[in-house]
Amino acid sequence: MSRDVIFDIYDDPGVLLAASVDRSGWPEAVAPRGVVQPRSVEGVRAVLAWANQTRTAIVPRGAGSGLAGGAVGVADAVVLDLSGLDRIISIDPNEQLARVEAGVITADLDAAAGAHGLMYAPDPGSVGISTIGGNVATNAGGLRGAKYGVTRDHVLALDVVLADGTLIHTGRDTIKGVTGYDLVGLFTGSEGTLGVVVGATLRLLPRPARTATASAFFDNIELAARGITAITRSGARPAVLEIMDGATLAAIDALEGTDLRSRGGALLIAQTDGFGAEEELDVVTAALDGAASRIEIAVDQADADRLLFARRRALPALEAIGRPLIEDIAVPRSRLAEAVRRIGMIAAEEGVRIFVFGHAGDGNLHPIIVTEHAPAGAPVPSPAQAAADRIFALALELGGTITAEHGVGRLKRAWAARELGPEVLSLQRSIRAVLDPRGILNPGSSL
Amino acid sequence: MSRDVIFDIYDDPGVLLAASVDRSGWPEAVAPRGVVQPRSVEGVRAVLAWANQTRTAIVPRGAGSGLAGGAVGVADAVVLDLSGLDRIISIDPNEQLARVEAGVITADLDAAAGAHGLMYAPDPGSVGISTIGGNVATNAGGLRGAKYGVTRDHVLALDVVLADGTLIHTGRDTIKGVTGYDLVGLFTGSEGTLGVVVGATLRLLPRPARTATASAFFDNIELAARGITAITRSGARPAVLEIMDGATLAAIDALEGTDLRSRGGALLIAQTDGFGAEEELDVVTAALDGAASRIEIAVDQADADRLLFARRRALPALEAIGRPLIEDIAVPRSRLAEAVRRIGMIAAEEGVRIFVFGHAGDGNLHPIIVTEHAPAGAPVPSPAQAAADRIFALALELGGTITAEHGVGRLKRAWAARELGPEVLSLQRSIRAVLDPRGILNPGSSL
Repeated sequence: MSRDVIFDIYDDPGVLLAASVDRSGWPEAVAPRGVVQPRSVEGVRAVLAWANQTRTAIVPRGAGSGLAGGAVGVADAVVLDLSGLDRIISIDPNEQLARVEAGVITADLDAAAGAHGLMYAPDPGSVGISTIGGNVATNAGGLRGAKYGVTRDHVLALDVVLADGTLIHTGRDTIKGVTGYDLVGLFTGSEGTLGVVVGATLRLLPRPARTATASAFFDNIELAARGITAITRSGARPAVLEIMDGATLAAIDALEGTDLRSRGGALLIAQTDGFGAEEELDVVTAALDGAASRIEIAVDQADADRLLFARRRALPALEAIGRPLIEDIAVPRSRLAEAVRRIGMIAAEEGVRIFVFGHAGDGNLHPIIVTEHAPAGAPVPSPAQAAADRIFALALELGGTITAEHGVGRLKRAWAARELGPEVLSLQRSIRAVLDPRGILNPGSSL
Repeated sequence: MSRDVIFDIYDDPGVLLAASVDRSGWPEAVAPRGVVQPRSVEGVRAVLAWANQTRTAIVPRGAGSGLAGGAVGVADAVVLDLSGLDRIISIDPNEQLARVEAGVITADLDAAAGAHGLMYAPDPGSVGISTIGGNVATNAGGLRGAKYGVTRDHVLALDVVLADGTLIHTGRDTIKGVTGYDLVGLFTGSEGTLGVVVGATLRLLPRPARTATASAFFDNIELAARGITAITRSGARPAVLEIMDGATLAAIDALEGTDLRSRGGALLIAQTDGFGAEEELDVVTAALDGAASRIEIAVDQADADRLLFARRRALPALEAIGRPLIEDIAVPRSRLAEAVRRIGMIAAEEGVRIFVFGHAGDGNLHPIIVTEHAPAGAPVPSPAQAAADRIFALALELGGTITAEHGVGRLKRAWAARELGPEVLSLQRSIRAVLDPRGILNPGSSL
């Protein structure tokens, strides 16, 4: 009697090296023991049952597009690569829900939903390369978060393989439901430390009837940040509200041949949607009147798409300049102006280049500290690390968080403990111990 | 040196009796030992520290407006009445957030937000009497859930007193944030079994620029339920989408002097909001064209308010007829028509009267089994209980849940276990044991 192959094992150096890095750009010094690619959920169960028995560290990984070192293979660990579980199982237009495996690329799901006039609302910058499993693991945000929220707001149910190989289904097919504790919320954002998400039931929404898009240029980013408060107070709720500083605009221009920097020293992109999109955009632009140096309304969808595409090229544009150290803070929206001003001071004082862009409608900034001519494999240079630490401290001082949407991973653990405080951290670790008593799930990451 | 009084203790029979019932109408047979009303968070901490040391059961309670027996005093327990902690601490229009104590009445918060052009979106039927703490404990839904979601979607941070009296603050002031596990989501909906919520930081939203409201009457509730799928497929997202059967309409007419039943055999109320409210309502009514026997557009806000007020009187109207046994199922929206048809069959077969209304946009139905001439304090009559059990089974058969928004409480425990299954139930109980190792928090309720 022959047995089906339920996973493949790799241990050649090239694969191990590739699995030891993510998009954050700062690899682990030592490659993992191996990479396992399950061909089915049964494969995942078998790997975890074995790992639990042998106390082998497992690092769940999707596309490797993470920005916090949360899914990088480390010494002695086995990387559990879920990218092969990539089936869209069903899209149900009557229920507006999708069932998918963890390895489905987020943009592929959105495109499949689009065939039914629906959308998958969460829209991380990495939407074209990241997986749903990775989005769930980090509770990914994105460009449409200002109105539509984050991944957690769109996950109805999860299939999770627990540390000992048990498969559970938690959550439900209905929009509402309060039977028992919210385990779906608990697993979402837990960075592979409580179980391995292998499937998800996701909520879809009607594609908006219309969108309307404006670019508002300002003399500098502090003025742009003040514009956010004016929009907040206007009563409008843009679906997208992005901010970019002048240095980021110049970097995008260099990569893409655009001319954004010549039009202003900072940019807000606002997109409204729905049946009243145009009227709502009028409210947004009226709120910026006087403060903005220049406001342009996108003439058509292609024009709007070009603008948002340019925004998505911000990180690649900075990667073309040097090695980025990527921050992901959020602050209360009314403190955005103070945050960007003080980030500028930190850059000057530490002698580093910091580019700032982000999802300003959520108070979410991505200050990117770019080091030119940093050799591959080198540790983070100390001025960059010093600047990063000061930005973390600034976020907490302003009543914010050290990570809005990228996750803690291995890169932000010390600061996560500081944000949570000893009592909440201890409570969270107790919950982790219940779900992973032998400590095999992504050890060294998150809490 | 005098010490401040931090809580008051009551043990007179009238208070104990009042604390042994909630709005579900089926009291515990034995009154609790006592009722404690803290005057401050310090009072809550002291009560829990004492209870944990003495292994005394504590039942946290807000307004007592629960519908599942989740906050009723039981034999040997002490009721912790949080209704005295009722301060709205702050409303911040720049951040669109509110800080409140647990005992604040939900409608009072919404009114305070309204003074700044903002709203607290969750809108349970009990909004005028229930507390924020109770809303958080049950993850309350409500009329605006179809578009705005439930309580959990609007809670940013919580102050929670743990079983041993430790006070923690979990969550954040920013809209986004992924540092650590989602304890806010875990506490929300945990029905006082994981800790006692004493304060909350809540998200507020701009009040919609406009609303537009329609009533669509149908010959019977099955036709009305089919209308929900037509609306789902239309691309519109009504903020409110309520359903009522003919018997409920007649009951409201009897209580309020309205004439709803003469206009049709079932009613859908749809309200759209935002800058495109009127156009979106046109899409809704076009979707119902042909299926509805009569469609009326509210002529002004007062007209719309009267209609929604009538809807909120559904439960009082049924309480005027007899003692209600209140169900709270949700099913996938495309199964609503089948659900209401089979609920009608169950009523006929068990010989009971079942009235049906609910938040149809969420797939959430409240089948109310009304028993006339049931003496106070009597147990639930067996035909009513048999019908209730069959409705629970129906919800699960259709891929739904036994409770969409009221909670499990003491009345639905057996069915909750069936819905969750042994593995998820055991996992949830392990988490409960971490947070409440001595089992003092609302024992006998929820899981």
